[in-house]
Amino acid sequence: LILAPVSPQEFEAELGTVATAVNLLLDALLPDIAADRLQAAMRYAVRGHGKRLRPFLVVQSARLFGVADGLSLRVGAALEALHCYSLVHDDLPAMDNDDLRRGQATVHRKFDEATAILAGDGLLTFAFEVLADPATHPAADVRNALVLALAQAAGAHGMVGGQMVDIEAETKNFSSYAEIAAMQRRKTGALFSFACQAGPIMAGTASGALQIYAEKIGLAFQIADDILDVESSAATLGKATQKDQKMGKATFVDFLGMEKAKTEAQGLVSEAVAALTPFGDDAGMLAATARYIIARRK
Amino acid sequence: LILAPVSPQEFEAELGTVATAVNLLLDALLPDIAADRLQAAMRYAVRGHGKRLRPFLVVQSARLFGVADGLSLRVGAALEALHCYSLVHDDLPAMDNDDLRRGQATVHRKFDEATAILAGDGLLTFAFEVLADPATHPAADVRNALVLALAQAAGAHGMVGGQMVDIEAETKNFSSYAEIAAMQRRKTGALFSFACQAGPIMAGTASGALQIYAEKIGLAFQIADDILDVESSAATLGKATQKDQKMGKATFVDFLGMEKAKTEAQGLVSEAVAALTPFGDDAGMLAATARYIIARRK
Repeated sequence: LILAPVSPQEFEAELGTVATAVNLLLDALLPDIAADRLQAAMRYAVRGHGKRLRPFLVVQSARLFGVADGLSLRVGAALEALHCYSLVHDDLPAMDNDDLRRGQATVHRKFDEATAILAGDGLLTFAFEVLADPATHPAADVRNALVLALAQAAGAHGMVGGQMVDIEAETKNFSSYAEIAAMQRRKTGALFSFACQAGPIMAGTASGALQIYAEKIGLAFQIADDILDVESSAATLGKATQKDQKMGKATFVDFLGMEKAKTEAQGLVSEAVAALTPFGDDAGMLAATARYIIARRK
Repeated sequence: LILAPVSPQEFEAELGTVATAVNLLLDALLPDIAADRLQAAMRYAVRGHGKRLRPFLVVQSARLFGVADGLSLRVGAALEALHCYSLVHDDLPAMDNDDLRRGQATVHRKFDEATAILAGDGLLTFAFEVLADPATHPAADVRNALVLALAQAAGAHGMVGGQMVDIEAETKNFSSYAEIAAMQRRKTGALFSFACQAGPIMAGTASGALQIYAEKIGLAFQIADDILDVESSAATLGKATQKDQKMGKATFVDFLGMEKAKTEAQGLVSEAVAALTPFGDDAGMLAATARYIIARRK
C-alpha cells in the first residue's frame, strides 16, 4: 500500500476545479426566470461558496470506475442540490433557527419562511429530475438505480430520519457516543455513502471498499465538525458556533474529550485510506480527501 | 359518442374500492417503526380520510391501456404520498397556517412544525423511492419516465411553483381569471396531468386525449373548490372555509360570479367527457369522475 501522495496544494486545486464545474452545471440546469421568486430562492440556496465536497466524492469515485466526468458531474450537481435543500430546511426557525450559512443570510432570512420551505421542496424534486434525465446516463436502469439509491439515502431511513433524531435530542439528549454516531450515519453519512457509490452504480457495479471508505470519512467529518465548533470562531465558519453546547446537546467531543476526539478522527481517516488499497495509486485524490476532511479549518 | 353510463352509485363504490386498496398499499409501503416520530408523522399525514382521487385517476387511466392494477396502484400510492406532502407543507404556519385538514388536526398541530417539515420531506422522497422500485414496473425505462414526469409535475415549473405564485397573491393578488387559471394549472393541474399520463407511460406511450381530459377536470376541480368554499360550512369540508375571501385574495368566483362559475365548471366537464370519445364505453368511469368532480359536496 503505497499511494502516490497528492499534496494538499494539488488537492485544493482539484477541489476548486470540480467545484467550479459543479457551480456552472447547477447554473445551467436550475430553472432560470429572473422574476420568479421561487427560482431566485433556489438559486440563492445553492450559491457558490460551498466546498462541493459531495460532488467531488462522486467525480473522484466515478473516475476509479472509468465513468466520464460529464456524467458524474450531473450526479454530483443533483446530490449538491439535495444537500442544499437539507440545509435550507434545517436552517428554518422551526428547526435549527439559523440566520447565517456560509457567512450569508439563510434563505428564510433573505426571502421568507414560506419561500424557503418551497425552495427546499423544489431543490429536492429537482435532484430527482436531474438523475432521471437521459443526459445523466444513457442506460435507464442506471438512472433508475441512482434515483432509488438517492431516495433511500435521503429519506426516512437516511438523512431526514437522522435530522428528526437530531432535533429530538434537543429535549431527550444523546446518552452515548454510539447514539450520536447512529444519528450521524443517517443525517450526513447516508449522502456520503451515496456520493461514493454513485460512480460504481454508473459503471453497473457496487464497491464494498468505497462503502467502508465513505462510512469512515462520514463519521470523521462529523467529529471534525464538532471539534471545529469548539475551536473556531463564527467569523471563520460563517455560521453560529457552539450551538450544541448552548442548548446542552451532547457532541462527540463531550463523550470523547477533545484529545481523544482528534485521535478518533485521525484513526478513522487512516482506516478510510486503508480501505482504498485495492485501487492503488489511482485513489490518491480520495486519500487526500480523507486527510482534508479532518485538516480543514471550516 | 355514447358512453355507457356509470351511475353515481357505481362510481362511489369504485372510488371507495380503489381508495381502500391505496390505503392498504401505503400502509404496507411506508416505513413502520412505531416508536419513530418521523414515521408516525408520515403515516398520520397520509391517514385514510381522503378520496384518493389522484390514485383513482391513475388506476382508471391505466386500465384503458391494459396496465394491471397491481402496478398502477403503486404509482397511485406514490402520487398520493406526494400530494399529502404538499398538503402538510401548505398547512404550515408560514404558508396557509391551517389547524384542520379533513376534520383532523394538521400534522404541525398534532406533532410540531419541525416534524411536519421533515414528514413532508420524507413523503416527497418516498414517492420517488416507490416509483424507482422494480416492483412498480419491470421496465427500467418506464420507471425512469415515471420519475421524470412526476419530478417535472411536482417541481418549480409545476406544483411547487404554483404554490409560490398562490402565496405571493396574498400581497399582490390576482388580476384576472387567466392569472388564477395559470397558477392552478401548476399548483394542482400538474398532478392531475401526471395522474392521467401515468397509465399511458406504463404502457410505453402517451395520450393526447387524456392530457386534454386532465387539464379540463383539473380546472373544473379548482372552480368547484372555490364554489364549495363559498357554499359549504367548515363542518362539511373539514377545513376552514372562505379563507381567500377573508384575506381578500381573488377566486374564480370573484371574477366569474357564482352562476357563471358553475356554468364554466359544467362546460369544462362536458369538454373533458368529450375528450374521452376515442376510448368509447371503456372510459365510462373516467366520465363519471369528471361529473363527480363538480357534483361533490366536499
